[in-house]
Amino acid sequence: MNIALLGCGVVGSGVKEILDASKQDVKITKILVKDKNEIKEARMTTDIQEILKSDVDVIVECIGGIDIPFQYISQALQHKKHVVTSNKKVLATHYRELVNMARKNGVILAFEASVGGGIPWLENIRHIKRVDRISAFEGIFNGTTNYILDRMTSQGVDFQAALQEAQALGYAESDPTDDIDGYDVKYKCCLTANVIWNTSLPLEDILFFGIRNVRKKDILYAAQKNAVLKLTGKAVKTDKGIQILVIPTFLSSQENMAQLPKNLNYGKIKSEYLGESCYIGQGAGKYPTAHAVVQDILSILEKRELSSKISEEFPIKKDYISRFYIRSQRLSSLENFVSDILDEETILTKNVNLLELLPYIDENTWIAEIRL
Amino acid sequence: MNIALLGCGVVGSGVKEILDASKQDVKITKILVKDKNEIKEARMTTDIQEILKSDVDVIVECIGGIDIPFQYISQALQHKKHVVTSNKKVLATHYRELVNMARKNGVILAFEASVGGGIPWLENIRHIKRVDRISAFEGIFNGTTNYILDRMTSQGVDFQAALQEAQALGYAESDPTDDIDGYDVKYKCCLTANVIWNTSLPLEDILFFGIRNVRKKDILYAAQKNAVLKLTGKAVKTDKGIQILVIPTFLSSQENMAQLPKNLNYGKIKSEYLGESCYIGQGAGKYPTAHAVVQDILSILEKRELSSKISEEFPIKKDYISRFYIRSQRLSSLENFVSDILDEETILTKNVNLLELLPYIDENTWIAEIRL
Repeated sequence: MNIALLGCGVVGSGVKEILDASKQDVKITKILVKDKNEIKEARMTTDIQEILKSDVDVIVECIGGIDIPFQYISQALQHKKHVVTSNKKVLATHYRELVNMARKNGVILAFEASVGGGIPWLENIRHIKRVDRISAFEGIFNGTTNYILDRMTSQGVDFQAALQEAQALGYAESDPTDDIDGYDVKYKCCLTANVIWNTSLPLEDILFFGIRNVRKKDILYAAQKNAVLKLTGKAVKTDKGIQILVIPTFLSSQENMAQLPKNLNYGKIKSEYLGESCYIGQGAGKYPTAHAVVQDILSILEKRELSSKISEEFPIKKDYISRFYIRSQRLSSLENFVSDILDEETILTKNVNLLELLPYIDENTWIAEIRL
Repeated sequence: MNIALLGCGVVGSGVKEILDASKQDVKITKILVKDKNEIKEARMTTDIQEILKSDVDVIVECIGGIDIPFQYISQALQHKKHVVTSNKKVLATHYRELVNMARKNGVILAFEASVGGGIPWLENIRHIKRVDRISAFEGIFNGTTNYILDRMTSQGVDFQAALQEAQALGYAESDPTDDIDGYDVKYKCCLTANVIWNTSLPLEDILFFGIRNVRKKDILYAAQKNAVLKLTGKAVKTDKGIQILVIPTFLSSQENMAQLPKNLNYGKIKSEYLGESCYIGQGAGKYPTAHAVVQDILSILEKRELSSKISEEFPIKKDYISRFYIRSQRLSSLENFVSDILDEETILTKNVNLLELLPYIDENTWIAEIRL
């Protein structure tokens, strides 16, 4: 089976390394690079058309970003090439279109590496689904923010210092917005829910909150309560639709998920026969991501059933009742919801519907769920 | 595809329930029961020959025990029927013979349910192995003993009371030897190692220790050290062979494995590209085990590569250097190894080779590893 790599950066070079050393019947025959100066081998080219018109069976997208990958993935599918990608942003944004395009052209669009690739997360979900009905999932799907919160918790550093450490280690991008504001977890939860429930959730309707405004004193509050702060994503299927949410959460330190160290990822599945099953592993990084990409390629080679289906629509159920920790400059507007006042800018709410709080949450508010 | 169930007890009835409700192209057409009085449906029989001579494609062994299952599994393989079993004892004891018999007859011997079936453990290992090299594993593979130790730790009850609770809940057998003396974990570690390294380890050479002699004061020692006592199994591949060991272990309570509650199972894999990946789920129970059995049946239906290979022999490397916690009536004989004396019958050792301690360990000794 012949493979083309689009992009040969961190992930692409990992895939190249693994496949070039592999004894399987899989060979990289084309590599798209951006610039003529990057061409170092005969199989490298700057011309996507050359790749689309070649005899490659699988095109692996490792470019990153959104517009160009969307264009290349679409073209690849239309040229009846299987596509493997780790690009959660493109997939979550254009899920319906891309899945239908793959289906129409009789090829596979595989994306194990896009969510918890080193776990492997989606593979376990597809496996469980063969026999079981999954009713819910939750987890920590962003290694960068877990690293930041873990450093703040274990070392007492502040958010900026922890973020800079994460950047120095290569965990965080120079523009960390996607990670720290919760976009990345939103994409991943959207894709996970889509795979579990054979649907295509409207990305823009998913409520998400990040950790940009977290402060040392929030971490101290957690410690006082024998709790740990984590950025979690979760979804439950109910009669009324799918409740899906990304939110920093104070977890009891007894919970398994609360113990997750460093930049690891954690996912928990609830299903009828298995009860709860949990998975922990690397969510990103050169080799774990490349491993997941190669797994998809082998599954395509073995003709495993990897196609995604969109067979049912579900409304997103936005009601979400819990207790929340809120820091705001406009506390007075929240007075109906207050259960405890921690200081002049921080309160705990009673059990309330998150929907009722939304009008009072602005970009300077920091909100977390309390699950203790 | 036609299936025969041998045995219709806890696991068998779970498999029956799942498959009878399944929309897949899989049908139970024969069920072996022990006694004519148990026959309640036309597909039930007491005659194994009737099943062997029928057109069933897969025979699922859910009888338990060792001699009769060995005989039935062998006969099934010789009749060119695929076999699915959760019976770790039969498999670990007769691994080479059964795997070779399956290979010779061109059928599959599948045993996902035998180790951490609700995780799923072997499935993840087979998956990782497609791309990666696994160098080590460790875990908690026995739910009964984890339940007992968890109750002793969280509720302060003694061993006998915790064991009785486990028996009342159906976690422990009336004869709990296999669980509490470490046999069950030994079988599971042996099978895990065999699958990971394509080998067939000599079961009788695996060192194993159980928790029959654990006392409240051992649990108190753990608490003082901010540690948790768990019955662990583990193996590492080294240049000199495979180091494999079942032993109660004092783990730092910071370790993820230390947090495992109730009767859950935990497994951790170390591989080249993924680093560490961990899996938590039910290790036993009607539906988790039945789920795993049905997964094997579907994999056979989908013609997935599930065959075990025995391609290399490895010696078991018995050297194992660590620190140990020992309670013995013969402490004087251990004086060369002592680092701390806890009381008149309990010591901590220096870093020593477990092999050197073996001559001083008898059935009244209790030994645990200290990993803090």
